[in-house]
Amino acid sequence: MARKRIIFSGSGGQGVITASVILAEAAVLYEGLNAVQTQSYGPEARGGATRADVIIDTKEIRYPKVDQPNILICLTQESYNKFSELIRPGGLLLVDSHFVTLARKVDARQVGVEMYNAVMEKIGKPVVFNICVLGTLIGLEKLVKPESLLKVLERRIPSEFLDLNRKALSLGLELAENLS
Amino acid sequence: MARKRIIFSGSGGQGVITASVILAEAAVLYEGLNAVQTQSYGPEARGGATRADVIIDTKEIRYPKVDQPNILICLTQESYNKFSELIRPGGLLLVDSHFVTLARKVDARQVGVEMYNAVMEKIGKPVVFNICVLGTLIGLEKLVKPESLLKVLERRIPSEFLDLNRKALSLGLELAENLS
Repeated sequence: MARKRIIFSGSGGQGVITASVILAEAAVLYEGLNAVQTQSYGPEARGGATRADVIIDTKEIRYPKVDQPNILICLTQESYNKFSELIRPGGLLLVDSHFVTLARKVDARQVGVEMYNAVMEKIGKPVVFNICVLGTLIGLEKLVKPESLLKVLERRIPSEFLDLNRKALSLGLELAENLS
Repeated sequence: MARKRIIFSGSGGQGVITASVILAEAAVLYEGLNAVQTQSYGPEARGGATRADVIIDTKEIRYPKVDQPNILICLTQESYNKFSELIRPGGLLLVDSHFVTLARKVDARQVGVEMYNAVMEKIGKPVVFNICVLGTLIGLEKLVKPESLLKVLERRIPSEFLDLNRKALSLGLELAENLS
């Protein structure tokens, strides 16, 4: 597998850090890969744009920050405006269409998906929005298997909320499938 | 402020990643500092020892991993055995006495505190153990103000669980006070 560099970006309450931790854990615990997950907070964190980086590789990872992501997820317009220029040529830029207008040309595949609206319509709980985003992401790019993400959710999430999370993951996978 | 390098270590379900994220956010959002928070997962993650690094500084932070922490928190014997030799001379090594026996001499202040047992006795909910650990930590080392941690908890935690978290933070601060 070629090294995958992923940035999740959005605002504080959208669960981007949790999404990145879940992805990294799935890669390490259930796919035998190495992963590093980082948050750098500087002046921009005070502005409201949260960013979480994940690197996944079969090889050891020495430098844990992502300069140019293969995959960039933007869940707010602010994060799109701030980070979209970082995308690696040929990469994937995934945004939520409810929050983000694709306002810039980039040398990458830009995909807007109605993830938030789908979660609100089909599940009604914004708290699992980030899990739906993960589902869409791994539907578009085979970073890890859905079963590996599910196993992490089973470890991390109280049993009474597990079903909600399962639904959100399936919904995301479905949204990705409908795109292709 | 001199640069603070902190490692939280323990096992999967103990909330060490969340604790480290909350500490970093408090420093950045409410104390005007810079912070970086990292998880590196390699073969050791599969073994069960979770580790989360935080660096806090007034200056910019370029290299985000901690080689030699000023402060090391170990919440399992396995993590103590694995990481305690990393502690910087003169640093603080904080462990939970229920889970860890201080089996090694180190050139640092080693402190065992009955955090887990106190949480179980006074609050009865193991889920806030990590918040009690944060309280004890900032009681022993003034990394950030309790009010800053509280503000992060208020942002992150559903209102129905906030009181539980507040109690756990206060309990941790109390345990630290009883030590000195």
